Amino acid sequence: MADRLLSAVEADVRAATQAAQRLRQAYGFDDVALVPGSVTIDPDDVETSWQLGPYRLALPILAAAMDGVVSPRFAAALGRLGGLAVLNLEGLQTRYDDPEAVLAEIAQAPKEEATALLQKVYQAPIRAELIGRRLEEIRASGALAVGSVTPARAEQFAPLCVEAGAAAIVVQSTVTTARYRSRRGWQLDFARFCRQQPIPVIVGNTVTFAATLELMEAGASAILVGVGPGAACTSREVLGIGVPQITATMDCAAARDTYYERSGRYVPIITDGGMRTGGDICKAFAAGADAVMIGSPFAQCAEAPGQGNHWGMATPHGALPRGTRIKVGVTTTLERLLFGPTSRTDGTENLIGALRTCMGVCGAETIRDMHCVEIVLAPAIKTEGKRWQLAGAL
Amino acid sequence: MADRLLSAVEADVRAATQAAQRLRQAYGFDDVALVPGSVTIDPDDVETSWQLGPYRLALPILAAAMDGVVSPRFAAALGRLGGLAVLNLEGLQTRYDDPEAVLAEIAQAPKEEATALLQKVYQAPIRAELIGRRLEEIRASGALAVGSVTPARAEQFAPLCVEAGAAAIVVQSTVTTARYRSRRGWQLDFARFCRQQPIPVIVGNTVTFAATLELMEAGASAILVGVGPGAACTSREVLGIGVPQITATMDCAAARDTYYERSGRYVPIITDGGMRTGGDICKAFAAGADAVMIGSPFAQCAEAPGQGNHWGMATPHGALPRGTRIKVGVTTTLERLLFGPTSRTDGTENLIGALRTCMGVCGAETIRDMHCVEIVLAPAIKTEGKRWQLAGAL
Amino acid sequence: MADRLLSAVEADVRAATQAAQRLRQAYGFDDVALVPGSVTIDPDDVETSWQLGPYRLALPILAAAMDGVVSPRFAAALGRLGGLAVLNLEGLQTRYDDPEAVLAEIAQAPKEEATALLQKVYQAPIRAELIGRRLEEIRASGALAVGSVTPARAEQFAPLCVEAGAAAIVVQSTVTTARYRSRRGWQLDFARFCRQQPIPVIVGNTVTFAATLELMEAGASAILVGVGPGAACTSREVLGIGVPQITATMDCAAARDTYYERSGRYVPIITDGGMRTGGDICKAFAAGADAVMIGSPFAQCAEAPGQGNHWGMATPHGALPRGTRIKVGVTTTLERLLFGPTSRTDGTENLIGALRTCMGVCGAETIRDMHCVEIVLAPAIKTEGKRWQLAGAL
Amino acid sequence: MADRLLSAVEADVRAATQAAQRLRQAYGFDDVALVPGSVTIDPDDVETSWQLGPYRLALPILAAAMDGVVSPRFAAALGRLGGLAVLNLEGLQTRYDDPEAVLAEIAQAPKEEATALLQKVYQAPIRAELIGRRLEEIRASGALAVGSVTPARAEQFAPLCVEAGAAAIVVQSTVTTARYRSRRGWQLDFARFCRQQPIPVIVGNTVTFAATLELMEAGASAILVGVGPGAACTSREVLGIGVPQITATMDCAAARDTYYERSGRYVPIITDGGMRTGGDICKAFAAGADAVMIGSPFAQCAEAPGQGNHWGMATPHGALPRGTRIKVGVTTTLERLLFGPTSRTDGTENLIGALRTCMGVCGAETIRDMHCVEIVLAPAIKTEGKRWQLAGAL
Repeated sequence: MADRLLSAVEADVRAATQAAQRLRQAYGFDDVALVPGSVTIDPDDVETSWQLGPYRLALPILAAAMDGVVSPRFAAALGRLGGLAVLNLEGLQTRYDDPEAVLAEIAQAPKEEATALLQKVYQAPIRAELIGRRLEEIRASGALAVGSVTPARAEQFAPLCVEAGAAAIVVQSTVTTARYRSRRGWQLDFARFCRQQPIPVIVGNTVTFAATLELMEAGASAILVGVGPGAACTSREVLGIGVPQITATMDCAAARDTYYERSGRYVPIITDGGMRTGGDICKAFAAGADAVMIGSPFAQCAEAPGQGNHWGMATPHGALPRGTRIKVGVTTTLERLLFGPTSRTDGTENLIGALRTCMGVCGAETIRDMHCVEIVLAPAIKTEGKRWQLAGAL
Repeated sequence: MADRLLSAVEADVRAATQAAQRLRQAYGFDDVALVPGSVTIDPDDVETSWQLGPYRLALPILAAAMDGVVSPRFAAALGRLGGLAVLNLEGLQTRYDDPEAVLAEIAQAPKEEATALLQKVYQAPIRAELIGRRLEEIRASGALAVGSVTPARAEQFAPLCVEAGAAAIVVQSTVTTARYRSRRGWQLDFARFCRQQPIPVIVGNTVTFAATLELMEAGASAILVGVGPGAACTSREVLGIGVPQITATMDCAAARDTYYERSGRYVPIITDGGMRTGGDICKAFAAGADAVMIGSPFAQCAEAPGQGNHWGMATPHGALPRGTRIKVGVTTTLERLLFGPTSRTDGTENLIGALRTCMGVCGAETIRDMHCVEIVLAPAIKTEGKRWQLAGAL
Repeated sequence: MADRLLSAVEADVRAATQAAQRLRQAYGFDDVALVPGSVTIDPDDVETSWQLGPYRLALPILAAAMDGVVSPRFAAALGRLGGLAVLNLEGLQTRYDDPEAVLAEIAQAPKEEATALLQKVYQAPIRAELIGRRLEEIRASGALAVGSVTPARAEQFAPLCVEAGAAAIVVQSTVTTARYRSRRGWQLDFARFCRQQPIPVIVGNTVTFAATLELMEAGASAILVGVGPGAACTSREVLGIGVPQITATMDCAAARDTYYERSGRYVPIITDGGMRTGGDICKAFAAGADAVMIGSPFAQCAEAPGQGNHWGMATPHGALPRGTRIKVGVTTTLERLLFGPTSRTDGTENLIGALRTCMGVCGAETIRDMHCVEIVLAPAIKTEGKRWQLAGAL
Repeated sequence: MADRLLSAVEADVRAATQAAQRLRQAYGFDDVALVPGSVTIDPDDVETSWQLGPYRLALPILAAAMDGVVSPRFAAALGRLGGLAVLNLEGLQTRYDDPEAVLAEIAQAPKEEATALLQKVYQAPIRAELIGRRLEEIRASGALAVGSVTPARAEQFAPLCVEAGAAAIVVQSTVTTARYRSRRGWQLDFARFCRQQPIPVIVGNTVTFAATLELMEAGASAILVGVGPGAACTSREVLGIGVPQITATMDCAAARDTYYERSGRYVPIITDGGMRTGGDICKAFAAGADAVMIGSPFAQCAEAPGQGNHWGMATPHGALPRGTRIKVGVTTTLERLLFGPTSRTDGTENLIGALRTCMGVCGAETIRDMHCVEIVLAPAIKTEGKRWQLAGAL
């Protein structure tokens, strides 16, 4: 036995060393909790604004560029409240003169036909003239107009955005890097692209220190953070790819800080996806986010174009669809979602109220103070009842 | 691939180092178990008393200042048995001449109207004269009279407590620190406040070493430990904030020991919230608690004013309520809860009997000996059956 | 923020260091798996026997001293097959002339009356003359007669066991240490007791290195390992006490090896409780067990006196009962349980066949070779289906 | 208390040190996720082929040698698509002239009779002449003919395979080592066996560095990796044995790399078992696999002989069966399983499409580039709904 054990231990040490180099633990929203500070602040005194290029935005919350979430009308409403909506420029709004009709059709389709219908309606071509028209509809409301395009179409559509008076442009795909290789020859030169735009370019998504740093060096004005964030995420099941959001945000925030030390330019990072409650959002800021982008909570608002339905841009993919149409229901309004009042006790309404209270309890006067809040690993179990938990008086 | 991998590893090391500084693992009751000692003691010989200022209390268990738990009558009953009840001085007892009527109304309200009703009944003003009256009702029974106030009203109500012969005063909010900042100018100077009171001041809640140390330095006579303790706690969902109780208790106990070394004054810490069974309570003491404060188990006693209902002080909050009215049922009496006998085998009755047996098995003669008991990480799974587990003869 | 963060980090480091000294991770059967060896052995060639004092026993499996498991008749049957049964000398067999009648009454009692009935029937006094009679019934069958007593009655009953020709005596309580303190003056001097007995003394239960070492130094011939082993164990819920069995076994095995180095006397350790399948048993041996003691699997045999019912000695406790009567059903026979054949694929039959196969695959010729098998942390999820897992051909 | 605590700590340190040497954490597919690269590649440009001895195979996917999965007809179909099927040479195909009839009988048997029927039909003797006949049926289709035998029959059946023009031979049992000891005298000398075969010998299964290295040194041309991979695996429940596949693959890949450094010969490792989705397969390659072997997903294809049924070779074992017949259903075709298109969003179709997309996102041009992809620990929770996760546009 002895020599066998010895060689087994030798092998283990070798293997364990190798493994340790690669198998880092990653954490998501449900794995952590925030620790109150030694100083507490009146929630009325905290400051939630953030900076995107030349713009100071009152609320650090963006609406995701998804067709069930953002329409020009929704963007106007969110803008009025201090937030920022991103319109999907390769979706239904730029394929149809009357997207409302298509949205209604999607909303009414039976569950089993939803994916097929989505595949069909997204086969209509994108019409360049509608890009400008939709952005102008947003501008007309007084809100900042921001649209999103994929890297493949960024060079084609960016001029149309600028022409329409867009405040910024989002270049987004599941995973975007500063370096893309294809034998078909095409590749977007991000550095050149960012240099050419007279408006801020927001790029994403990414989850790593290295890729974030490269995109910042290429000139991005903000970075979207998030790839397959959730434990039950389809990117994880289908591709095996994904990084839980707390770790992704911390890593990308480290790149932001490194880049800021090197260059003096502070490029905000926007945690995108996986947040459902005020608690999740507060945790994203503690992990280092300058702003957050959410989809589903907005999709549940009366103002959302999806009429209680929600789907991703990978859903209509012909050969390898990921995600599906989800009935989230119309359960709130934009105003109640952001500012309450609410009678719900699960954190799904009054997101800004929750953020302000959290900042007060943690002694953070600004969003950047939130980056210093202590985080502990404290798994949340989403179980009903069993243990009664009552919050004390505040 | 090689340079890519290298820079990825470099980035990881950087990020992992940063993360390690912040992401400490925290533990709750269900994560740990106690290890028997090398000496065992006759349970009849252990000593469960603890010291609060000038008072020696027989049982290290307090009843939480919640309206469904403590009324003057309940305080009297618990005092007779050796425990200590804290009356909420900003709740129904000080807003209504006849709180029983309001309590009955709450108990009878349908589930869907409960939160709205709570919001309504808590809008009645607090009447200063009722503070003294309720505390005197408790004193009349021979029990120690202790009431709780929020920091904002501490200076206003403390004199009334002293005048009414209170044994101690509790200043409590979800998170209380020695330093609170508000542009509106107000702030409670804890050091001055504690100096001014002729009776012990119990302050809470807190969960960190630093905040506990500051509150002890400010003159607190005892500290309440516990913020968002549970994995399913509403503070966690709504605000993202919370520290599991074993870790919170260990950290605050370390502050107590540090402060004791520095000052020679021993300030007890009281673990507040999240305990449901005798096992949970035993674990709190092993983690360093000098006493524990519980709510739900008392709310289930026939003597409790809630008539089987339980709610927290954050429930009636207008804009961001946390927690709700919970039907816990009337399932036991104070005496059976504390001393048995019981036919239940889930640890929810005979809490003191369980504590004494645990102390005997762990070889701890006193509560402070319990602080030295070895704790292991041994997750409890609250599943039914599957594995039959039978305790041996003791 | 800066100084606040600094002091928070300082506090954390302090607290984390303290915590690390105490919060060791403990592991149970479901947390680990065994790793095949670099040599494999024909299962027909492995040797499963172990040594208890002067006796060589063919099978390293004992039946627990529980009234639903072991009667004289059961002990005879298990002895014939090579195992060892321990009779509870403070249970029904020594309180009643006709224990079968009482056992039948327990088996037929409705669920809600079971605990009360158990409390009642255990109030009959222990009759000294029945101790000898039962042990002689076992001896008459040719099997080794072994009975168990509690420490409090060890000195009184041990002579009766010796007189009746017992092969060994078990002194067992939930937690047994070499040092017990009581103001009532009584304490069993284990060293003197062991010296006085002409037969091996098996002592338990314990879970720590230190307590095991002391009991071995006091002269124990074997140690029973296991206190509150299971995640859902009643000792854990009621008292907070318990150590998962893999860790308990490893710690006590380390004490055995240390004692063997010091003294030259090899004292076997017997892992007691928490095992349900062949896999669990194999893991116990890999963790360092020389033998295992099981209850529930035997309670399910046609030969068991409980007629498909099972309860622990803490169940009839008047003030703080732990555990209850459990209907385990009569699902197998002793022979099938130990040697198969079986058509079950969940590891609950053919325990010895499983052990032999495991030893072969791990390259262990003897039980003591099993102590060197590599163990990995590989949580078992007891879920149905979802992932199809098919074992390959052997 | 003090000395007790000290000796307890001493004991703990001792025990913890011992434990740390043995209790290494092992990881499975659901414990990890892949991290996108800093470079991304057009999925059309990645290269999925691998080398087995003299053969270059287009797809790195093998079908497991199980009777419900591979028949000569299935092998032909998979070969046409670029994959490789292994025929079980000790199963129904070599025991019956007309295996289809027996397969139909198994498919139609009621659930409760399935195991008994399997036990019966596998008692028919293996007929040597059928070995050649089945392999030739595969060859006739143009596909590579590969069959599997157990170590005990390897020397007897290998010449028949060679004679029939087999491309390779698989020698497989649950755990196979280069050293097997039996008092009955027999043992397969792997080094001599491999030397004697004119065709590649694939050996398995194994999970450790040491055993893999020995098998490579003995001359194996490829190694099958996987023993009791799943958390709910029957090998784990029955024998306690098993290593989760990510760790097993990493350890065996380390042995491959070590052997390659020493010898200059690159011996591919094939991760066998436990994969259900495209994500699982991608993770296996990231952990170090050169190819993967799957069973259940193929068993669900219309081309599979089991007609929607699946069972392992340990199922018919007389005394200690593991696994059972599972109704997996006929849910897809070979072509759709491998290449799509699909409307499923759970990763169970278009496995090669998923692999190519994953390689692109991770910046891996070849399978061996995949071995460098960063892996994080990010537990997947297979829950329905609760959190909506939508993949972004790609």
